[in-house]
Amino acid sequence: MTKAKVGILGATGYTGSELIRLLVKHPGILLKAITSESHTGKKISDVHPHLAKVCDKKLISLDKIKEHDLDLIFLALPHGKSMEIVDNIFNNGIKNTKTKIIDLSGDFRLSNGAEYSKWYNMPHKCPELIKHAVYGLPEIFRDKIKTSNFVANPGCYPTSAILAIAPILKYDLIEHDNIIIDSKSGISGAGAKIKQTTHFPTVNEDFTAYAIGTHRHTPEIEKILTSIYWTSVRVNFTPHLVPINRGILTTIYCKAKEKIDQRDFNDAFSKTYTKEPFIRIRNSPPSVQSVRGSNLCDVYVKFNPRTNDVITISAIDNLVKGAAGQAVQNMNLMLGLSEIIGINSPPIAP
Amino acid sequence: MTKAKVGILGATGYTGSELIRLLVKHPGILLKAITSESHTGKKISDVHPHLAKVCDKKLISLDKIKEHDLDLIFLALPHGKSMEIVDNIFNNGIKNTKTKIIDLSGDFRLSNGAEYSKWYNMPHKCPELIKHAVYGLPEIFRDKIKTSNFVANPGCYPTSAILAIAPILKYDLIEHDNIIIDSKSGISGAGAKIKQTTHFPTVNEDFTAYAIGTHRHTPEIEKILTSIYWTSVRVNFTPHLVPINRGILTTIYCKAKEKIDQRDFNDAFSKTYTKEPFIRIRNSPPSVQSVRGSNLCDVYVKFNPRTNDVITISAIDNLVKGAAGQAVQNMNLMLGLSEIIGINSPPIAP
Amino acid sequence: MTKAKVGILGATGYTGSELIRLLVKHPGILLKAITSESHTGKKISDVHPHLAKVCDKKLISLDKIKEHDLDLIFLALPHGKSMEIVDNIFNNGIKNTKTKIIDLSGDFRLSNGAEYSKWYNMPHKCPELIKHAVYGLPEIFRDKIKTSNFVANPGCYPTSAILAIAPILKYDLIEHDNIIIDSKSGISGAGAKIKQTTHFPTVNEDFTAYAIGTHRHTPEIEKILTSIYWTSVRVNFTPHLVPINRGILTTIYCKAKEKIDQRDFNDAFSKTYTKEPFIRIRNSPPSVQSVRGSNLCDVYVKFNPRTNDVITISAIDNLVKGAAGQAVQNMNLMLGLSEIIGINSPPIAP
Amino acid sequence: MTKAKVGILGATGYTGSELIRLLVKHPGILLKAITSESHTGKKISDVHPHLAKVCDKKLISLDKIKEHDLDLIFLALPHGKSMEIVDNIFNNGIKNTKTKIIDLSGDFRLSNGAEYSKWYNMPHKCPELIKHAVYGLPEIFRDKIKTSNFVANPGCYPTSAILAIAPILKYDLIEHDNIIIDSKSGISGAGAKIKQTTHFPTVNEDFTAYAIGTHRHTPEIEKILTSIYWTSVRVNFTPHLVPINRGILTTIYCKAKEKIDQRDFNDAFSKTYTKEPFIRIRNSPPSVQSVRGSNLCDVYVKFNPRTNDVITISAIDNLVKGAAGQAVQNMNLMLGLSEIIGINSPPIAP
Repeated sequence: MTKAKVGILGATGYTGSELIRLLVKHPGILLKAITSESHTGKKISDVHPHLAKVCDKKLISLDKIKEHDLDLIFLALPHGKSMEIVDNIFNNGIKNTKTKIIDLSGDFRLSNGAEYSKWYNMPHKCPELIKHAVYGLPEIFRDKIKTSNFVANPGCYPTSAILAIAPILKYDLIEHDNIIIDSKSGISGAGAKIKQTTHFPTVNEDFTAYAIGTHRHTPEIEKILTSIYWTSVRVNFTPHLVPINRGILTTIYCKAKEKIDQRDFNDAFSKTYTKEPFIRIRNSPPSVQSVRGSNLCDVYVKFNPRTNDVITISAIDNLVKGAAGQAVQNMNLMLGLSEIIGINSPPIAP
Repeated sequence: MTKAKVGILGATGYTGSELIRLLVKHPGILLKAITSESHTGKKISDVHPHLAKVCDKKLISLDKIKEHDLDLIFLALPHGKSMEIVDNIFNNGIKNTKTKIIDLSGDFRLSNGAEYSKWYNMPHKCPELIKHAVYGLPEIFRDKIKTSNFVANPGCYPTSAILAIAPILKYDLIEHDNIIIDSKSGISGAGAKIKQTTHFPTVNEDFTAYAIGTHRHTPEIEKILTSIYWTSVRVNFTPHLVPINRGILTTIYCKAKEKIDQRDFNDAFSKTYTKEPFIRIRNSPPSVQSVRGSNLCDVYVKFNPRTNDVITISAIDNLVKGAAGQAVQNMNLMLGLSEIIGINSPPIAP
Repeated sequence: MTKAKVGILGATGYTGSELIRLLVKHPGILLKAITSESHTGKKISDVHPHLAKVCDKKLISLDKIKEHDLDLIFLALPHGKSMEIVDNIFNNGIKNTKTKIIDLSGDFRLSNGAEYSKWYNMPHKCPELIKHAVYGLPEIFRDKIKTSNFVANPGCYPTSAILAIAPILKYDLIEHDNIIIDSKSGISGAGAKIKQTTHFPTVNEDFTAYAIGTHRHTPEIEKILTSIYWTSVRVNFTPHLVPINRGILTTIYCKAKEKIDQRDFNDAFSKTYTKEPFIRIRNSPPSVQSVRGSNLCDVYVKFNPRTNDVITISAIDNLVKGAAGQAVQNMNLMLGLSEIIGINSPPIAP
Repeated sequence: MTKAKVGILGATGYTGSELIRLLVKHPGILLKAITSESHTGKKISDVHPHLAKVCDKKLISLDKIKEHDLDLIFLALPHGKSMEIVDNIFNNGIKNTKTKIIDLSGDFRLSNGAEYSKWYNMPHKCPELIKHAVYGLPEIFRDKIKTSNFVANPGCYPTSAILAIAPILKYDLIEHDNIIIDSKSGISGAGAKIKQTTHFPTVNEDFTAYAIGTHRHTPEIEKILTSIYWTSVRVNFTPHLVPINRGILTTIYCKAKEKIDQRDFNDAFSKTYTKEPFIRIRNSPPSVQSVRGSNLCDVYVKFNPRTNDVITISAIDNLVKGAAGQAVQNMNLMLGLSEIIGINSPPIAP
């Protein structure tokens, strides 16, 4: 069988280099082209020394990508830049292009251009394309992803939040308008580009919250949960920074509906996730170390009869299930490959 | 003026050694005796090498404490052990003893023996003494502390939670029965004694929740908040472990009452805390690094009009404002000294 | 082809669980049995939650191992315990047993029983078997390993030190009696068992040296270097603890012989390592993050003409190239498999 | 007694903010002015939030410093910039100015302008002033510092190295031309300004060496050691980065002269340091956590009779004894105050 030819646009960020880590060992595809505007001409291993001898491919410029006859492109670009590329690729109408696209930015995850402008503080350049993007969360939208040629890969926080809420919302066990999402992320989530908030002495031995009430992943979470529940879901989402490299732990507080108890919550999780290859239902609170380096998402649910709250917790590696790993999972589905191929390495602990 | 003679029972834990760090430089008292059962006869600096040349005092056994005519004793003992000592000291009736006591354990913080047994899984040995203990949170109970000879020093999590909730509860700005407290603590909060959950490779690069719905600080928080609001307050408290040495950040989610906005929340904090020497009201989300090593508590409040939630956040050093520093603050009040003496060193950052 | 049947004795330590991580995805063997005395009957994933769904095999007792007709056994046991097992297995003479052994302890790495007793403070139970063990450093002893049925897997520090010194010693570029080895190891090197020196608050934000002049890896390093140089090599080895989970960086100081310069050192490294699959010669100082999770060893050499010293540096993951990964590399050689199979995953960074 | 008026030029770096932390509580001086060019007009607590309520002084521009009649100025400026200021202040000849200067940069620590140019890659603007600067290491140059009005505050690495070598070099116990200095520093040593090498995910869980054979502190160490030994001392100095905020541990390897043993080394340390207020001679390997936040330097010496090497180790807080604390110690001496005033707070651990 001919292997699909794959490229990565924006290969030098953490998402890009993680895609390379996964794709160079993927037996079902060929990694043909990787791009970088700031490092054009260098080898990827000059930028990311851990990739030496693993992938010493040269970084090319975006405009050279046409020379490669790619079957699938990962866009690991900043938001705003992704929509330019997508607009360009799809300019002859989305039906006619053969190249499949997985966009890892936030450009095609919200409902429409107006919502995008509001949360991302910039106009959307091709709002008419938004509706063509399938939200790439396989546990919920697997069938749509399989037949799509344009997938919006979920944000890291939304992945962790949606997977922990979806089962109990779907089975109507909680109030849909009172959901508190308290997320804690490792610092790689802030990207490879240096800034004051990621300066080692600033972050190390620190813990803090940010973007309170204003984080762009809020409408993404609400959109997807609403699509599950059919009624408008409201969430209060607060992200925090943990001084670790990788991992998101999300703690979610919901109000249980009447006469619901622990068993109902357990059942909802079991029914939803028992056959999922990358979800592990836990009997004790999950931890980010247990999923590090892997595409797994650990979930846990605990009802508190004293307050009638239910707490669900999820743990993912933000760069794998929260970004590159999920993108490969989507690629596998879009290319008709086994869903787990290339992303079934065990977690690394300690 | 004669300086008060002070002793520490249980000096080798983190709370004990932190008390020593603060007391050896305290100009208003004399540290006369420090005890340890497991290290009797050694110097404290043999157990805690950072104290070499700072305090090379010998550790004595508990039963030798009577030989020192102490004016005030800090009990830095495990819960269960504290009540034995208190029972012993107060066996002739609480009015007759001259030695003042500050108990840093959880033994005298709850409402009564029954509640204690339920949350601590052991009977209380002297439940009749519980009502004599004043809860040592000076920002709320300053006057009572000044005249007390028996103070129950608050838990670390309750200190962080109560200080962030009290102003907006007192001014009746939030629903009192729907308070979510999501706390994140550094590992020193787990004590100096080794255990699997504090093994470096287990904890480092990890993040996890624990004691969901069952943590002993829950009833302590509810008791004090109820005493402020006069109506029974219910909280859902979830602690997490952050791989840092010191610091607690607590994120609290409350439902705002009708027609309340950001200004009302700001006013409540200002009116409550403007004159407090150890509270800093912040305009951006606080961080634990900004209070490290100090007795300060940073607080912050943000109203989310989209969801009608209000988020308050506090940051403390769990070993200082969350334990030893607050105990010294209480000591200062009980001995009629300046409240800030010995505990007004600036934070250490980075 | 029939796959070899493999077992791990002592599967719940870090070396054991890392072996499992590697072996469950190894296409050339079958992991048939894993033992633990303290956790017999539990699943390995109950002890190491990151292995849930990856390997939920039950831990059996050592004495049940005979029931499995194993082709190769990894001994991931404490020193002292390993020699008991080896003695037992080989009691009919080393030629007659068919089961191959890879011992990851220090029991069979030194020259003889007397040296062992001196450095390990215990008598050796089967000193006559020491000479049968091949030292499992493939870059130096590949051919011997291929035909051996008993391999002593190198210590983590010796792996890092020997690989960085061997080329320049072999090509006679340095004084052999003045070698300073300053090593820095992540905390997983201290094992999965809790102790005061691995208590998170003790280790975190700390840095310290230990076992100065007395570490057991000293004679191991000297023995192997001596076997390369044919003249007795003396090293001064000092290990340090770095507050990270994984990784050893070793900085080595040697005196250059006369008229030797940077080019000679580079040539020695090139000639020795160009074809090695797991060695990367670096142009800038290596770092442990660049090899994390992989079986790679990064090496670097820099001549200082001002002092006539040469500095070589190596970086490995102590649990992979320093333990489990190297053991699998040895297994591959002993079983006639491709040397890199099962251990060629890229490093994980950040 | 009138308190001396003190200013800090360049107050927003880590050294500057640490000086503020120490000086605001110093009972013998008045902190009158702090400057910053990039943050002029802001409060220092806007730049360093941990200083809120501790020091909310406004940052002024350098050229406003003349308006304050300062008795002593700390220069916490980048090298190159310091010499400009010094040149300016001393332009009427060093004898005529009344303002004392403590320069924390490297501009006046080397022997002469030529050496400076060679190691700092820039010409020196006022090489004739270099000889007027006293090297501010009180344990060695206390008497000169007391009468000086211009002190060059030592580098962090040189402080740690010189204090650990001086005693055994002075008492002629080691070869003076074969000294290996292997230093490990926390990341705050790289400064408050962001760069790729201090990006959290780059540094965290990593360990690496840098500036091998070329670090600017090399000639500084050699100059001071030579001044002690009277014969030209050569050192091989290699710095490493440890993923912690504060602390330098320096491990030093020397060759013992003939017939020297452990007792001789101990005696040298005892004779040199017994009366020193900030030096603690340790019986076990020191650790950086034990000195954190304090002006202490822990030292340790161990003879290895097997190799005839002697190892000395020192631990300091790079921002205190390695920078701001030592500067205050020098200030105390220069102003005729008690040497320990304002810098005798105990270390903070854990």
